[in-house]
Amino acid sequence: MTEAPFLAACQRLPVSPTPVWFMRQAGRYMPEYRRVRSRHGFLELCRSPDLAAEVTVTAVERLGVDAAILFADILLLLEPLGVGLEYSRNDGPVIHRPVRGPEDVERLPRIDAAAELPYVYEAVRLARKSLRVPLIGFSGAPFTLASYIVEGGGSRHYLHTKTLMYQAPQAWHQLMALLVDNVISYLRRQIEAGAQAVQVFDSWVGCLSPHDYRQFVLPHMKRLFQGLPAHVPTIHFGTGTAGFLELLRDGGGTVIGLDWRVDLAEGWQRVGFDRAIQGNLDPAALLASRDLLFEQARTILDRAGGRPGHIFNLGHGILPQTSVDQVRALVDFVHDYSQAAGKNG
Amino acid sequence: MTEAPFLAACQRLPVSPTPVWFMRQAGRYMPEYRRVRSRHGFLELCRSPDLAAEVTVTAVERLGVDAAILFADILLLLEPLGVGLEYSRNDGPVIHRPVRGPEDVERLPRIDAAAELPYVYEAVRLARKSLRVPLIGFSGAPFTLASYIVEGGGSRHYLHTKTLMYQAPQAWHQLMALLVDNVISYLRRQIEAGAQAVQVFDSWVGCLSPHDYRQFVLPHMKRLFQGLPAHVPTIHFGTGTAGFLELLRDGGGTVIGLDWRVDLAEGWQRVGFDRAIQGNLDPAALLASRDLLFEQARTILDRAGGRPGHIFNLGHGILPQTSVDQVRALVDFVHDYSQAAGKNG
Repeated sequence: MTEAPFLAACQRLPVSPTPVWFMRQAGRYMPEYRRVRSRHGFLELCRSPDLAAEVTVTAVERLGVDAAILFADILLLLEPLGVGLEYSRNDGPVIHRPVRGPEDVERLPRIDAAAELPYVYEAVRLARKSLRVPLIGFSGAPFTLASYIVEGGGSRHYLHTKTLMYQAPQAWHQLMALLVDNVISYLRRQIEAGAQAVQVFDSWVGCLSPHDYRQFVLPHMKRLFQGLPAHVPTIHFGTGTAGFLELLRDGGGTVIGLDWRVDLAEGWQRVGFDRAIQGNLDPAALLASRDLLFEQARTILDRAGGRPGHIFNLGHGILPQTSVDQVRALVDFVHDYSQAAGKNG
Repeated sequence: MTEAPFLAACQRLPVSPTPVWFMRQAGRYMPEYRRVRSRHGFLELCRSPDLAAEVTVTAVERLGVDAAILFADILLLLEPLGVGLEYSRNDGPVIHRPVRGPEDVERLPRIDAAAELPYVYEAVRLARKSLRVPLIGFSGAPFTLASYIVEGGGSRHYLHTKTLMYQAPQAWHQLMALLVDNVISYLRRQIEAGAQAVQVFDSWVGCLSPHDYRQFVLPHMKRLFQGLPAHVPTIHFGTGTAGFLELLRDGGGTVIGLDWRVDLAEGWQRVGFDRAIQGNLDPAALLASRDLLFEQARTILDRAGGRPGHIFNLGHGILPQTSVDQVRALVDFVHDYSQAAGKNG
């Protein structure tokens, strides 16, 4: 059996057409998802392996994408840490007992939190049974997890996070080390259950200066990626990272995920052509007319220039306002255009 | 009389010490400002030339900075356009009649909105009388103004803005052209009243891809900067622009303002050494210990490497949580360190 195009592209092998999948491809924009969700809370859905697997697989079938991503949340790992994770109906995640100072870090349980999430691995196993494309497992990256724990939820300026970093660097590094241990364990367990690639989402790391990234994040990312099995492709994704792509790459990852605020060709060159690249259409482009959507997708494929190792994706997750038809049309366009142009082949 | 260090640095003349000022240096973090503000609404304060001038001058006297920036708001120009600008007590600006579609753009009055803001120019004249350092005038950039008008306030994803751009490009360009005309008129009037430099704040342009910036913003920025008098230094500032600094530079500006999410030396190299550079300390660094604050400031000064044309600033405005003493200490540090290191001299 030949290797799946997505996995081949991770290894920079020539494949045609260009493989494509989307962050948050199983989400609120999809009627099938909303139907399931109307009967179950968000955490309940994550904790029901059969439902999580169903949602994962449905998205692939509806869209015709080249990879599945497990239905779960980047923050699930925080629940066993006892910080009081809750998902409010509309306002996203809330952490009821935020970690603000060194004494809070001290109080965090030294446990293998990943061992408390058996339903995730069961969902991986179930989804694998029905899927004919590779399944991607994932976790939030340590910085992004830390920023949620410290802020107590989403944030604009990340001032509590930066204050901890700046005023108690030792506690900060302790917190990051603890999170790295847990993320490694979590991703390894997903891989053991059947995940064929894993993505690390550093969604909020773009609030940092390159100087702070180097000092407060990079060593931890290196340890994280070194702790993962070498035979499984890893995707290292961040947003707002145009100022320190080289450092993000130094952190690790078989594939570097770009957001839309950097030109794909420039970004790939800065990362180096010895890594695969994933991205990077603005999710808002899916709200445009089909002509403009295709023009933007074409630009990205042209910028990738048919070089092996490009995985088409958005620069962040699919927005809830998006129409499923538009996403399907994009998948077809990416396949047709890249194949016709002899891209990746 | 020798030229003021700030103006000399704008022209990349060697000066020592490195000049420094701060975005939002007259603002909520300052007790003197809060005292004035407790008796007057925000718009009322902007509309009272004597108070606006007082607040402008007080900040300079308290901090010992090398330039004043007029107390005003980046959105003042929107008021005469009849979109219903209001400042809510805590939630920032609200636009009660947002511009969403082509017909809304059509309805905007074709007036010289800048002619309706005499109090701004009067504040410039009054502030100049008391200042011994140069006074910077400013405006929001057309994209940032447009995003406020279209969204109706702040935004996370700028979906209304992008939808207008994508679905009605002609109306978008019409809106941008109208805003460019008004910004030119507004900045010219500030200069005529005595502003010795002007800064254009493109605070939210970082939500765009380089591709969209080139298509939907760049031509307008070129026309804007070409419409300003050549003898007055212009500062072109944006945040989240690490992915398209070269395009921002192509838009114009004697000085390019960097946010903190790009390394100053790399940013300057990309912009080109034939422009001056302003920045770029993370505003959150002012919440750190003094040691760490100074270490971060030192890194920036070292990265500038004593090259003529560096103006020290934050990467965005001073945060309300900041202590005035900390800001003063930073001014002294920048002056002492850059002078001792023989920087810029």
